[in-house]
Order: sequence, then C-alpha cells, then structure tokens
Amino acid sequence: MSDIVCLGIDPGLARVGYGAVSQSGFKLKALNYGCIETSPEMIFTERLLKIYESVHEQIKICNPDLISIERLFFGRNTTTAEYVYQARGVVMLLAAQNHLPVVEPKPNQIKMALCGTGDAVKSQVQGMVQRFLALDEIPRPDDTADALAAAVTGLALKFSL
Amino acid sequence: MSDIVCLGIDPGLARVGYGAVSQSGFKLKALNYGCIETSPEMIFTERLLKIYESVHEQIKICNPDLISIERLFFGRNTTTAEYVYQARGVVMLLAAQNHLPVVEPKPNQIKMALCGTGDAVKSQVQGMVQRFLALDEIPRPDDTADALAAAVTGLALKFSL
Repeated sequence: MSDIVCLGIDPGLARVGYGAVSQSGFKLKALNYGCIETSPEMIFTERLLKIYESVHEQIKICNPDLISIERLFFGRNTTTAEYVYQARGVVMLLAAQNHLPVVEPKPNQIKMALCGTGDAVKSQVQGMVQRFLALDEIPRPDDTADALAAAVTGLALKFSL
Repeated sequence: MSDIVCLGIDPGLARVGYGAVSQSGFKLKALNYGCIETSPEMIFTERLLKIYESVHEQIKICNPDLISIERLFFGRNTTTAEYVYQARGVVMLLAAQNHLPVVEPKPNQIKMALCGTGDAVKSQVQGMVQRFLALDEIPRPDDTADALAAAVTGLALKFSL
C-alpha cells in the first residue's frame, strides 16, 4: 500500500501553521512542519503573498495527496475573521491550482479523531499529536501542532471525500 | 499628463464585478467591465480558481496602476462573509503578485466620491457611474456598476495612497 500524504494547515494572518503527515497502513509519520510568520509591519497584500509563496513551497516539498484545513469559527471578533478568511482563501486557491482535494474538519472532528472525544482540551490534542507521530516533544508554536492535528484528521476523514 | 488606470472590483463568490476606468486630466473613461460568475454547483476551491484566473485576465487587459476593492461590512450573515472574504483574499493576492497598490474605500466613501454625500442610495450612485463615464445605460448587474463606482472612487482617493 503506497503512502498517502496530507498537508495540514492552521490558517491565520500573523501565523500559518503547516504540517505534512504521511500514512502507510496504520503508520503515521511527520514530514515537513513548522509555522509561517508575517509581520504586522508588512502591508496586508504582501502578507498574503508571503503566505501564498510559503505554503506553495511546502506543497512542493511534500507533494501531498490532499490538504486539510480547519474550519474556522469566530465569535464577535469580526475584524480578525475578516483578515484570517482572506488568508484562508489564498490557501484554498493553492489547493485548486495544485488539483488537491480539501478536507475541512471542524474543531470537534479534530478532537474526535485525535482523542476519541469532541470534548478534549488543547493540551490533550497536542499530546496525541506528539504520540501519534512519535515526536520527541510537542511541536511549537501551537499553530504547528494544530496543523499536524488537522493533517492526522484529514487522513482519518479522507475516505469521506 | 499620462492616463492612470484603476481596476475596481466588487468582491463576491457567486458574482465578482470588475470595471477598469482610465483618467486623463479630469476625463474618465470606462475600459473593460463586466461580471464574473461562478456556479454554486462548482466546488468552492474551483470557484476561487475561476475568480483568480478571470480577474488576472482583466488585469492583463487593462494593465492598471492601482486596484480599488470595496471594504465589506457584514451584519450577522457570517456564512456569506466567510466565503466572500476568502474570494476577496484571492483578489488581494493578485494585487500583490502584480505589484499593484490597493485602495479599499468604505461604502460611504464611494457614495461621497460619486454623489458628494455619504447618504446617497444605490440608484443615485449607479446614475452617477453612468454619467461620469458617459455610458448609454447603467451597467448590469449591480456588481458591475459597483465595481466601476469603486474604480472611480479609487482614482479620486489615489493621492492618499
């Protein structure tokens, strides 16, 4: 059975987490992962361009079969939502340009996939990311761990595509 | 005095209005304008890709000096906002990729630029679009007229860039 690679993305404007995970049978392995940062001192369109080029670079490195990008939920902080959604649109465009199917797990689906319950807290999800991927420590910052959690969930959900 | 060209965009997911306006001295002229449509039957990422490629095509046609894209305001309809902002992000990315400055007029700035008052209603703005650009009729659909209004406003505001 050949490997399947999922690139998880935790979208944002100041920080975009990414994490590629390969699956071979039941074995999961972390490939490239990290966090793209854009400075508030950059103009907005340049921040989007940096996100676009950096995520594109990660796609070229891991050559994924699918992308998993968490569904976002915002409360009343609509200004943050406005910018984060525009950044998310840039990643979604990259998926289309690279002919990649997209899984959009909800937060409780990620908790369910990693911890077996939709009520898990962030530290439990991060602990399971470390354990599933046999990492020496929990990836930092949170955005990186969240992206890897999205990737693992994407692999779990891929058959529902 | 050489012409300055502004490409106005009215962002959306199902319909993206576009309208290029050139300014030579006090004379304004409409260049390419129209409306890009994406079907709800297309998957979301493919709709973003169509918007990206279609707006890119319009940029190549009019070779603008700047882009004007209306600032959006949503009430409680956050699902619409989520998709429209992602589409807007794709247009903002194109601005960066083409090294174009962006003007983001608020709705009342567009009304002020076209009608001299921030309280103008949509039909007044559309009437002034037709008059300023000496068009035989008001461009349809509304998205096209709104994009041309954004372009005219972009030219009026460009010195504040």
